[in-house]
Amino acid sequence: MAEGLKVLAAALPADVKVETTEYDLGARLYHRTGETLPDGVLAELKTHDAILLGAIGDPSVPSGVLERGLLLKLRFAFDHYLNLRPGKLFPGVDSPLAGQPQIDFVVVREGTEGPYVGNGGTLRTGTEHEVATEVSLNTAYGIERVVRDAYRRAAARPRKKLTLVHKNNVLVHAGGLWTRIFAAVGEEFPEVSTDYLHVDAATIFFVTQPERFDVIVTDNLFGDILTDLAAAVTGGIGLAASGNINPTGEFPSMFEPVHGSAPDIAGQGKADPTATVLSVAMLLEHLGFTAEAATVEAAVAADLATRTGTRSTSEVGDALAARVSG
Amino acid sequence: MAEGLKVLAAALPADVKVETTEYDLGARLYHRTGETLPDGVLAELKTHDAILLGAIGDPSVPSGVLERGLLLKLRFAFDHYLNLRPGKLFPGVDSPLAGQPQIDFVVVREGTEGPYVGNGGTLRTGTEHEVATEVSLNTAYGIERVVRDAYRRAAARPRKKLTLVHKNNVLVHAGGLWTRIFAAVGEEFPEVSTDYLHVDAATIFFVTQPERFDVIVTDNLFGDILTDLAAAVTGGIGLAASGNINPTGEFPSMFEPVHGSAPDIAGQGKADPTATVLSVAMLLEHLGFTAEAATVEAAVAADLATRTGTRSTSEVGDALAARVSG
Ligand SMILES: CC(C)[C@H](C(=O)O)[C@@H](O)C(=O)O
Ligand SMILES: CC(C)[C@H](C(=O)O)[C@@H](O)C(=O)O
Repeated sequence: MAEGLKVLAAALPADVKVETTEYDLGARLYHRTGETLPDGVLAELKTHDAILLGAIGDPSVPSGVLERGLLLKLRFAFDHYLNLRPGKLFPGVDSPLAGQPQIDFVVVREGTEGPYVGNGGTLRTGTEHEVATEVSLNTAYGIERVVRDAYRRAAARPRKKLTLVHKNNVLVHAGGLWTRIFAAVGEEFPEVSTDYLHVDAATIFFVTQPERFDVIVTDNLFGDILTDLAAAVTGGIGLAASGNINPTGEFPSMFEPVHGSAPDIAGQGKADPTATVLSVAMLLEHLGFTAEAATVEAAVAADLATRTGTRSTSEVGDALAARVSG
Repeated sequence: MAEGLKVLAAALPADVKVETTEYDLGARLYHRTGETLPDGVLAELKTHDAILLGAIGDPSVPSGVLERGLLLKLRFAFDHYLNLRPGKLFPGVDSPLAGQPQIDFVVVREGTEGPYVGNGGTLRTGTEHEVATEVSLNTAYGIERVVRDAYRRAAARPRKKLTLVHKNNVLVHAGGLWTRIFAAVGEEFPEVSTDYLHVDAATIFFVTQPERFDVIVTDNLFGDILTDLAAAVTGGIGLAASGNINPTGEFPSMFEPVHGSAPDIAGQGKADPTATVLSVAMLLEHLGFTAEAATVEAAVAADLATRTGTRSTSEVGDALAARVSG
């Protein structure tokens, strides 16, 4: 996080001052107070222009507590329906794929619906007759807005290709709704060429033909799975950035590395800050600092192209900040 | 299918005759009659020892019709709760992964629950207020039996490792149930070492460290996704076999290639029959012909290790049958 803020400060024009408020949420707050996201903090966060989220999570906190109580609570409360995750293989970065294919796509993941809504429960809990449910909720309203955003993005890119990923041969109700809306909104974008893949088939193409993808639009759960796979084939989760965006501007958007908190190496100065720095680039872009965003991405690209040896977290941050200022 | 039956006949001892009944289901029957799996056929199938299913599906049939009306109907009607899918990189086969890692695991996919139950619907269909749901149903009964099977398999393998894959930090109800049962059944198998991965993280390890996996147990949807990815990293869906197994023997088990019907090349003699032949090996194993199953798998391994040039579907089948008889 420190390196991200360092690069942010270096990237902004001299007359733009960032005011930052730091919130110590996550495992520490939870252990101290039992809270994950106090209402007061949520209200204060709302007054900010954007949020930069450090990775959260610690094995001392039961699985799901911070995810549902903090990360997903923010995404849902601030209506981050556009979860934007680029998949790009930078020159000089090793992909685990033989042949080092050209990869440059973006996944538009729906962020506020689907199996992530937390609608479910258990019956006869703890007995041999227990039943557990999870309900995936999908609305025309929620799907249409994110699908339209994906079409706009595809139309603005040179290849103008949009792929819908779902599992409409099994999840026929949700998949049918996605498929119908995808076709209907497509009428507005005759210049965009489209295709459809089942999620299982999509994972095959991610490793055999990742260069075929330009923009991908998909639901919350499939987007979660595909973007980790995308990170893997583009050199690892240490480089994967993301934006949780509320495009209307009613709520602050939130930018975060896709990776977790890596508690095994926390505080040792070993973590690669690149994913956070690339998330800062997305934050700049979102706030209208387009040139500055490009400068940060170019600094990362130049750094990745010439990496040798092992550097500490702050050495990488310093190098990136220097490139950005230079 | 013809090649699969050829190899089956070649593999069985001289005094064992296979009686086969052929059912022309799929797109052709659907277009002729509007039916996908007539009740009479289902009743007849029940009297067989096993089913070998040719890949189904055709673009002329709406997505979901044959999947839900034939394939999934069989899996559910015959209580195929054990969906067994090996992920093995045979020597001589090119993986898309750099470094050609050693891959030899098996995915135990639950086959009768989860988001596959078809429980969902739409409200205000076709309007801008439409809502679509999909309900994932999970029972202690259904999870425990497949988890116990996975432990047994792991205990019988040299590495004795079992990985549970779910998304228990988001799907807390279903994921919680899976996690609790996984831990409870584990008490019976102290010799098996276990770990847990979220499905998104699992896809990363499938491409960066596939050699770490031995046995994987997971739900119906995650198993669907992971086994296509497994097929991709082990040389492609043309080699991936599967068994839909009813371990109690109350119903016939069903064996099928993981791939689809490839309608673009159907009838041209180009399709690789290897996935079907490997499914025949699983069928033999299931019916107690363990040595014969091993012979078929060895024939495939030998064929894959020495492949050159292009052969037709029946040439591959002939070569495999010859190796099995020889
Ligand atoms: C931590 C978890 C809740 C989260 C998700 O599932 O969305 C993460 O995997 C991600 O991709 O941002
Ligand atoms: C065709 C489809 C219903 C099926 C599934 O989703 O199970 C297939 O993808 C598979 O993996 O066998």
